[in-house]
Amino acid sequence: MKKTVAVLHGDGVGQEVTEAAVKVLQSVGRRFDHTFEVKKGLIGGIAIDEMGDPLPKETLDTCEKSDAVLLGAVGGPKWDQNPSALRPEKGLLGIRKHFGLFANLRPVKAIKGMSEASPLKDHLSKDVDMMIVRELTGGLYFGEPKRKNHNGAVDSLTYSREEIERIVEQGFELARLRKGKVTSVDKANVLETSKLWREVVEEKKAHYPDVEVEHLLVDAAAMKLITQPASFDVVVTENLFGDILSDEASVLTGSLGMLPSASIRSDGFGLYEPVHGSAPDIAGMNIANPSAAILSVAMMLKYSFGMETEASAVETAVYSVFDDGYCTTDVQKAGHRVLSTSAFADKVIEE
Amino acid sequence: MKKTVAVLHGDGVGQEVTEAAVKVLQSVGRRFDHTFEVKKGLIGGIAIDEMGDPLPKETLDTCEKSDAVLLGAVGGPKWDQNPSALRPEKGLLGIRKHFGLFANLRPVKAIKGMSEASPLKDHLSKDVDMMIVRELTGGLYFGEPKRKNHNGAVDSLTYSREEIERIVEQGFELARLRKGKVTSVDKANVLETSKLWREVVEEKKAHYPDVEVEHLLVDAAAMKLITQPASFDVVVTENLFGDILSDEASVLTGSLGMLPSASIRSDGFGLYEPVHGSAPDIAGMNIANPSAAILSVAMMLKYSFGMETEASAVETAVYSVFDDGYCTTDVQKAGHRVLSTSAFADKVIEE
Ligand SMILES: CC(C)[C@H](C(=O)O)[C@@H](O)C(=O)O
Ligand SMILES: CC(C)[C@H](C(=O)O)[C@@H](O)C(=O)O
Repeated sequence: MKKTVAVLHGDGVGQEVTEAAVKVLQSVGRRFDHTFEVKKGLIGGIAIDEMGDPLPKETLDTCEKSDAVLLGAVGGPKWDQNPSALRPEKGLLGIRKHFGLFANLRPVKAIKGMSEASPLKDHLSKDVDMMIVRELTGGLYFGEPKRKNHNGAVDSLTYSREEIERIVEQGFELARLRKGKVTSVDKANVLETSKLWREVVEEKKAHYPDVEVEHLLVDAAAMKLITQPASFDVVVTENLFGDILSDEASVLTGSLGMLPSASIRSDGFGLYEPVHGSAPDIAGMNIANPSAAILSVAMMLKYSFGMETEASAVETAVYSVFDDGYCTTDVQKAGHRVLSTSAFADKVIEE
Repeated sequence: MKKTVAVLHGDGVGQEVTEAAVKVLQSVGRRFDHTFEVKKGLIGGIAIDEMGDPLPKETLDTCEKSDAVLLGAVGGPKWDQNPSALRPEKGLLGIRKHFGLFANLRPVKAIKGMSEASPLKDHLSKDVDMMIVRELTGGLYFGEPKRKNHNGAVDSLTYSREEIERIVEQGFELARLRKGKVTSVDKANVLETSKLWREVVEEKKAHYPDVEVEHLLVDAAAMKLITQPASFDVVVTENLFGDILSDEASVLTGSLGMLPSASIRSDGFGLYEPVHGSAPDIAGMNIANPSAAILSVAMMLKYSFGMETEASAVETAVYSVFDDGYCTTDVQKAGHRVLSTSAFADKVIEE
């Protein structure tokens, strides 16, 4: 197959980790006989610096002509004081909305032998394997009216039934391919949007008799993620709850530096990016852990290109490098050899 | 001094834990020469059953005539399918709003010798000592418009400058009496209300040069509560973020059954209640841990009655009972003797 991938490396370590990930992608191409054409584009702080816009039109054009997007990371102290329209994260919000990437998939999985790095006691973290499915283009992020003056401000949490239906379906479909359980998170005892959300989940449930459904209030979910993290399979929730809970979940297993994410829509087009940030303090040093970017490529292969075998091969390779006694600076282990960003990618390719 | 306290025991274990707490309150009266007059009222499920209203007018009258309110807990499976207006939590939301109790104070403190019960590794949980200050009468809980039909729904996140100012001041004042640090949590990269919130914090900061201020995005806060919980002192945030983060924080130290809370306004009137729920499964068995209710009384003594010495005496007594080798069913420890709800109260009184 031939696929075109837009690579937007963004800021900080975004550059080196996407480079590593592209190397792995190309090796997948050679090994499995695909052609991946890579086109570069600017986003975030670097796009502000070079083009005066966190999401230049050229970048959108490049992405339009591609089958999927690989993003590094955006942001850094340099742009923190910028006015709202000229902030790196505007690029991220803009691209999600422009392409209608309504489903954000965030897997969180305990990695064997890494429980030392987890803040949780071992027995709690060791079996964690969940997928948070966050609605990404609705709710408080984009709802109108949204305004502020000296005396007050307002944001609007709006959801249409269709917006809820498509993300809830996504949750059910994923649960079917995993452990068969959906936890729907809302605040139905307070919010009208959550009442509608819960109604939709109850309706959809009828079409997925094979999937077990649990409703949790967001406050209870924030507790249960810590006290019983291994009890979750698929968690489906609205945009802001998903933002909070997926970040909360991302630190549970001590593998934050290794977590990928996908932001997709129904036709397979998607944007893939590491969960970690741009880490400006270590940018350019070739020491960042590229696992999250590489695993994001694995998600791209699976969700955008339907290349399941290729995706598993990449995943297995990443985990094997760690199993074989290597590590990166962020997850050092006694007796393991520390690899640089590029050397890590080479090892993954070897595997 | 003479004070009148409205006691609304509510549902489930609410009854037995408030009884235990009132016993302790009365013993404080005897020991320090105060008179506490107790008046009972109904709220929650029991009020629905007996009066057809989760917050009957009689209850509001009783509270109006009191100097403070002690609440047990509300809710239970019996009322879970009720329509919105007839749900126990409507009573809770109603009483907060009716009395303008805009500041919810939620201390979370590691208790010596209890780190076994914490989901976190010992070195992370042992020094936790924070106070979450949650705005309680604004934001998405009460903002208009708020509506739902078949095709969509909306909730409104509204804040006036004054609403933000008074809660932020509360946070600064509390930090002064504690470790001198305020963490303000918002989502200023996305929400207009959060931008206003951050502006207000920056303005108020000038009046509290002795207090250190940190701004955190809510997603980052959800992570840091787990990875560096001991780094927090006072956390101040809006209603829904406070709901989520205070529940998240409540499980960190393994002492959920022991956490009190206060919901106050500027004139000293306040409502005090355990953080734990009504626990219908163990209701009426005289085994619930009454510490949270008793510590809620300590908060009442301090924040509503200005009785600092009395408050400390109660706190110290509760911790001493545990130190002396006793415990309750929820926090059993090898070698410790399990006490019933009422026996625990008696031990506290003895101390
Ligand atoms: C940068 C920010 C706007 C963004 C969000 O809140 O969605 C980020 O936190 C994320 O989760 O991707
Ligand atoms: C019962 C519910 C409405 C309430 C809230 O969300 O405020 C509860 O979770 C709390 O924190 O006191």
